[in-house]
Amino acid sequence: MTDRREFRDLASGEELAATIDSLELEAGTERASLENARGRVLAERITAEIDVPGFDRAAMDGYAVKAGDTVDAGEASPVDLETVGTLHAGENPTESIEAGEAIEISTGAVLPPGADAVVVVEATSERDGSVAIRDAVTPGENVMPAGADVAAGRRVLGPKTRLTPREIGLLSAIGCDAVTVRKPPTVGIISTGDELVRPDDTLDSAPGQIHDVNSYTIAAAVEEAGGRSRVYPHVGDDEGSIANTLTQAANECDLVLSSGSTSASTMDVIYRVIEQRGELLLHGTAVKPGKPTIVGQFEDAAYIGLPGYPVSALTIFRVFVAPAIRAAAGLPERRTATVEADMATRARFEEGRRRFLPVALVEDGDGRTLAYPVDKGSGATTTLVDADGVVDVDAQTAYLDPDESVTVELFSADAAIPSLLGAGEGDSHLWDLLDQLDRPRYLAEGSRTGVRLLEDGVTDVAVIAGPIEAPAESVVLDSWEREWGLAVPTGNPDDVTGLDDLIDGDLLVATVDSQWGLAGSFDAAIDELANSRDEAQATLQRSLRTIETRSFESPARRVVAGDADAGVTLAETAADLDVTFVSLGTERVEIVAAADRLEKAGVRTLRDRLASE
Amino acid sequence: MTDRREFRDLASGEELAATIDSLELEAGTERASLENARGRVLAERITAEIDVPGFDRAAMDGYAVKAGDTVDAGEASPVDLETVGTLHAGENPTESIEAGEAIEISTGAVLPPGADAVVVVEATSERDGSVAIRDAVTPGENVMPAGADVAAGRRVLGPKTRLTPREIGLLSAIGCDAVTVRKPPTVGIISTGDELVRPDDTLDSAPGQIHDVNSYTIAAAVEEAGGRSRVYPHVGDDEGSIANTLTQAANECDLVLSSGSTSASTMDVIYRVIEQRGELLLHGTAVKPGKPTIVGQFEDAAYIGLPGYPVSALTIFRVFVAPAIRAAAGLPERRTATVEADMATRARFEEGRRRFLPVALVEDGDGRTLAYPVDKGSGATTTLVDADGVVDVDAQTAYLDPDESVTVELFSADAAIPSLLGAGEGDSHLWDLLDQLDRPRYLAEGSRTGVRLLEDGVTDVAVIAGPIEAPAESVVLDSWEREWGLAVPTGNPDDVTGLDDLIDGDLLVATVDSQWGLAGSFDAAIDELANSRDEAQATLQRSLRTIETRSFESPARRVVAGDADAGVTLAETAADLDVTFVSLGTERVEIVAAADRLEKAGVRTLRDRLASE
Repeated sequence: MTDRREFRDLASGEELAATIDSLELEAGTERASLENARGRVLAERITAEIDVPGFDRAAMDGYAVKAGDTVDAGEASPVDLETVGTLHAGENPTESIEAGEAIEISTGAVLPPGADAVVVVEATSERDGSVAIRDAVTPGENVMPAGADVAAGRRVLGPKTRLTPREIGLLSAIGCDAVTVRKPPTVGIISTGDELVRPDDTLDSAPGQIHDVNSYTIAAAVEEAGGRSRVYPHVGDDEGSIANTLTQAANECDLVLSSGSTSASTMDVIYRVIEQRGELLLHGTAVKPGKPTIVGQFEDAAYIGLPGYPVSALTIFRVFVAPAIRAAAGLPERRTATVEADMATRARFEEGRRRFLPVALVEDGDGRTLAYPVDKGSGATTTLVDADGVVDVDAQTAYLDPDESVTVELFSADAAIPSLLGAGEGDSHLWDLLDQLDRPRYLAEGSRTGVRLLEDGVTDVAVIAGPIEAPAESVVLDSWEREWGLAVPTGNPDDVTGLDDLIDGDLLVATVDSQWGLAGSFDAAIDELANSRDEAQATLQRSLRTIETRSFESPARRVVAGDADAGVTLAETAADLDVTFVSLGTERVEIVAAADRLEKAGVRTLRDRLASE
Repeated sequence: MTDRREFRDLASGEELAATIDSLELEAGTERASLENARGRVLAERITAEIDVPGFDRAAMDGYAVKAGDTVDAGEASPVDLETVGTLHAGENPTESIEAGEAIEISTGAVLPPGADAVVVVEATSERDGSVAIRDAVTPGENVMPAGADVAAGRRVLGPKTRLTPREIGLLSAIGCDAVTVRKPPTVGIISTGDELVRPDDTLDSAPGQIHDVNSYTIAAAVEEAGGRSRVYPHVGDDEGSIANTLTQAANECDLVLSSGSTSASTMDVIYRVIEQRGELLLHGTAVKPGKPTIVGQFEDAAYIGLPGYPVSALTIFRVFVAPAIRAAAGLPERRTATVEADMATRARFEEGRRRFLPVALVEDGDGRTLAYPVDKGSGATTTLVDADGVVDVDAQTAYLDPDESVTVELFSADAAIPSLLGAGEGDSHLWDLLDQLDRPRYLAEGSRTGVRLLEDGVTDVAVIAGPIEAPAESVVLDSWEREWGLAVPTGNPDDVTGLDDLIDGDLLVATVDSQWGLAGSFDAAIDELANSRDEAQATLQRSLRTIETRSFESPARRVVAGDADAGVTLAETAADLDVTFVSLGTERVEIVAAADRLEKAGVRTLRDRLASE
């Protein structure tokens, strides 16, 4: 690794923003028809070429009259006028009115020659060939004169105006059926890495393939920021193909974004391609996440290299790149939506870098908004949806204390705080329950995580299974039993009927992390077997050949994949996966709520739902 | 009008909302590919079918080791391990490591068999065939175990989830390339009225044609609310064609919206078609604007008849219809954006109906937000863009006093208060100036309106021309001269050289409303002529044959249209319209600012801009 270069002189967030700001991303203008103009940004001044209305227009249903004829009219002293016709909207007035005459007129119709006002129908009574006018009108009353709405020559909209339905209405009124608008910047997206596979292709885990998360995520984020995204075929780590794809994208786009392959390692080819064949403006930032960010120029396009991890890529995109795309598209700055919250738990920071800490929000029983850090480690994609926003923590801050007040920048301005926050077991009955709630958040990370987060005052409810005990300060809302046992290959080739067979048959058994109730139920059954055999429990455990998995469905999946002879499982999982099931008993599942959250709206809704079942 | 039916028992706003809420607008579900899923609303539960990652994954660049081999390693006491290979992301590990060995590994690569941790590259030094480890690691350190991000079987997203880039990232990660989403309701839009012409067709003003404003406006508003709009060919007032188009739309759409033709008048056919052939659920509401609103059912579709005036139609749509479309599309309620403001002027209400009063916003010199009513009369489309929102005024309120505090519901959540508010003359130099400012609002309604609004404390600046005087409490920011005179038909067939010719030649002269500086300049010139001829000014005025128009460009346009022999005009207007110009002199144009707004940011920007010219 002699070629490895350290990131020296990491740029500050301000320098990164300024460098991105210096890029030329604007894409010029284009024409848009009125039907397709919504949301676009005007690039020209619009001047009315016609008067609106183009004629003196009846503003009410009623009778067109000479105002002078109505001077003496009143409720008690109606004035009779001879009716000499009827005029609907869209009709050409064929006769004018003389003194003493009136024409019945509809809203929107042309005021006939000779008339100068309209008496509303409610102030009239029709008689045979005449109309009784019960209200005096002044000249111009209930008439919209030609050009009174928009006069020809008026500057009606200026450049930079965003076209909402209201502007589209005004453009319609003046007969403007196409406008010159800002063309959104075209943003090319390139994911690099030999290990990446598109979401619609099947993974091979043996060589460590993973799905390409960044391409579609960043494409969606580009569109959200007002750009046009163009996703290029994913390229491997080969310098030639990276250079070719970069060249094509640079020729077709205003900005090219890549993700991954941007560190100064010899393996990270894109960095070298930009350094050698393009122009490197900035490499490395002191912002966390985001260290290996690159800003540069390649051929005629601007180039930004985002970090490879999805959360890092999206954070850098959102904070630094999206504002530049919005500006180039002519959109106003994104309305920053922030929420003030108190930290639910402590967050520590190891190093002196400005950090965007992903946090999620929850309301406690008193309606106070709490923020808790969400970080399942580098590269976790669940952080994307388990968090609601970030806290911008400066480089000098080494930790945030519980109850410390923080400002959370929400990922979406219209993001709502989850109505209910739970953590614990996975269970099909629970999934059905969650589907019926509005905006629940549930972290299916096992019973022990459920207990811990409830005890820490983070979650509203925990779902706990097997022998794991609920926290002291909790209230059981519901409980049920579920069957557990062993998944074995279809047809049960090893004739497994119980735990004895696992030990005596020297079978490879997939077990599960002690997080899960299932692990507790399995251990308890081993204990029982040890007692019945009069052997030490530890001896029995040692004589089992096991591979431990992370989650409650994983053991059965190992059996399906042919990687284990048997696996600890729930009956429902075995049924879902269509694998043979050997029952070993039942375990209890409990939904418990934090005692001080019982009256919270989301918990009440859950209780009502459970009560109605 | 014997068939005319009064609106009896007008429904309250609450009844209107409840009736619309009772309509069945949901459109079912459809599949969306991941590329097209942004903004869509999930209609299914998504469960992970794979572990993410699918293998134990190096989380950092470095060396894969057995953690036990590093127990004694430290900065001062490095441990040497033999390097037995290199593993990049995407490579299948071909060899396992034994005690005392290490394999160089990239972030994202598969942890090789035998290894249980990764030492980060910064804590190592490469030597010939071996690596010095300067930091002890624990088992699992810098490794993301299989399933640690997402375990197969985890419920990752629930129904009703709106798909933002973050959810798209998570779906990518689990290889979910298409999802079942709510299908947005299809909303058919029908404009009725013989007088309507689409914006891309030419108007004939003689029979009172106007452009169809509602079709594109409501279509854009439907899309904004999350629906799919379908605009039908505009129909006249003929019962057969209305019924045919309604039937077609009802068969193709979940909701049909019409505008206009909904009053109980005999002329308003759509009302009768719904009443006779469909089901009328509600007719007429006490909300203003919106009285002739209809709610019903036609064939299998829901039907809502909106008022014909664009501001009324869009107000009823925004307040009552958009929430129902959003709900049917599965979108959360629109975040209501409100602004607290003080009334700048008084607003009076004639009748006891709940009213949505269109208002615009402006900041005064102290940063206080003022609201002023915007109402150019029924049917004015400029109200659409000259207002920023509405004040919901209950039926009991007869007036709002100046300085009274009101809550303004903004039309758009991200609407920004204009940086500068001006009113007065139209002028090409002014247009250029305005184009250079950010979010100015300018009401080109003449000098006198400019003076009045400045005196009322509404506007920041007024632009005044001719002999009209600036208000006392104002400061001149800039002034210039402009040439004015007469527009005459090309080639000047009547040989007009001055005002004498207008009088002596018995020509028809288009003049302009006294709002405008141009009218003052013209009157002053007539005065001067009267003096020089030794005649009474009134006599001279009477001997002129004139038609008065509303706006400063209108007289010249009348000449172009052949409706006048001469027209009062600015030289620049004559040049723009390519009509022959006879100069009569110059008039002064002034931009004046309210003395108490001089330090407001938008006024400062304007002053800076003027100073730099």
